[in-house]
Amino acid sequence: MHDRMDAMERRLATLEDREEIRNLIATYGPLADSGKAEAVAALWTADGEYEVVGFATARGRAAIAGLIEGPTHQGLIAQGCAHVLAPVTVEVDGDRATAIGHSVVLRTGESGGFEVYRVSANRWTLGRTSEGWRVVHRANAMLDGNEAARLLMSPL
Amino acid sequence: MHDRMDAMERRLATLEDREEIRNLIATYGPLADSGKAEAVAALWTADGEYEVVGFATARGRAAIAGLIEGPTHQGLIAQGCAHVLAPVTVEVDGDRATAIGHSVVLRTGESGGFEVYRVSANRWTLGRTSEGWRVVHRANAMLDGNEAARLLMSPL
Amino acid sequence: MHDRMDAMERRLATLEDREEIRNLIATYGPLADSGKAEAVAALWTADGEYEVVGFATARGRAAIAGLIEGPTHQGLIAQGCAHVLAPVTVEVDGDRATAIGHSVVLRTGESGGFEVYRVSANRWTLGRTSEGWRVVHRANAMLDGNEAARLLMSPL
Repeated sequence: MHDRMDAMERRLATLEDREEIRNLIATYGPLADSGKAEAVAALWTADGEYEVVGFATARGRAAIAGLIEGPTHQGLIAQGCAHVLAPVTVEVDGDRATAIGHSVVLRTGESGGFEVYRVSANRWTLGRTSEGWRVVHRANAMLDGNEAARLLMSPL
Repeated sequence: MHDRMDAMERRLATLEDREEIRNLIATYGPLADSGKAEAVAALWTADGEYEVVGFATARGRAAIAGLIEGPTHQGLIAQGCAHVLAPVTVEVDGDRATAIGHSVVLRTGESGGFEVYRVSANRWTLGRTSEGWRVVHRANAMLDGNEAARLLMSPL
Repeated sequence: MHDRMDAMERRLATLEDREEIRNLIATYGPLADSGKAEAVAALWTADGEYEVVGFATARGRAAIAGLIEGPTHQGLIAQGCAHVLAPVTVEVDGDRATAIGHSVVLRTGESGGFEVYRVSANRWTLGRTSEGWRVVHRANAMLDGNEAARLLMSPL
């Protein structure tokens, strides 16, 4: 009986981990589009990283908040933008997890209609912390035909 | 032992609530694109509301079905359209829940290719009813740079 | 007590089925965009089918891998593309399941920016196998105003 309960608790915990990770990633877009820099940064661990492959890596929450507060992102918000993150495929291994999925940035174009601004591959490495699951590393690469994006999308 | 089972049942119920809410929202797009007006309306409570912020609010199932049956939506369907709803971030609090996420309407353009027609923020308020979770209020605002959309996307 | 545990195990199994199916479908896009033909094919059963309604049906894993290895798909990858699959609504009935949702193919256009290439309705039929859930049949139809896509999107 106890064995059966132990097994059920493990299965529950696995489902809860996946649910929490999926929800964490689904929170990024709304927070980014509403300009909540501190809340975006708090999705990462204290020394978490956001790497745009081949371009730059923001390290730590202050740097990540800085991306949201910076002129590029603030310009996008003022113009009208949506950071849409597609469903992710998730693999949990103890206190680490990997999630892979697309992100698409849509924005209001000069003609007033919407246009597709960026389409990227994302590979998220997540860690279990005392505050719950947090992003340890997010790697992002544009799906413009470069090999980097295909590597991020490759099987877990 | 009973306490342990009680705790597991509560955790299961939480996961089931989140699963049901996610599935309910994922059903909207396919139903809207196939023109199933009654089925769309049945996602809402009897007196549920669909508010397009700053524009109009449809109150009750007949009014919501009317949006699907109306000439604007029927024209989109005939032309070719997709109401794509991104993953939502969900917070459940007893018999109420809030979900936040993007919606994107794509349509066939005049040149025959597809174009991005609308990109919106959505904030869903849901309630537990005897029929399961239903939409009490959906607020939608275009992400065209206006403040209303950013408010809908702000933290739960 | 045993009845209560039996009930919990059934509820857990239902959640696990839904989680696994959602994850399987979320894996398609990243695998397709990174050109992993064998891994894409392995999402299907040995004799699974990928039907593009009114056009052609690929039957069996070799044929499905062939779609990824073929010149059309390889050209898209080289040019830069994203096969973005929206959240699905899922219904599980014993060892069979149905999932419905949109897919959107984005690609780098001639001008260097991204464009929406295809927007489709998808109806997935899945089966429980000894290896886990696999795709038995995926039907895909462009949402360009044709009736076929609306039928795929119709209620489960």
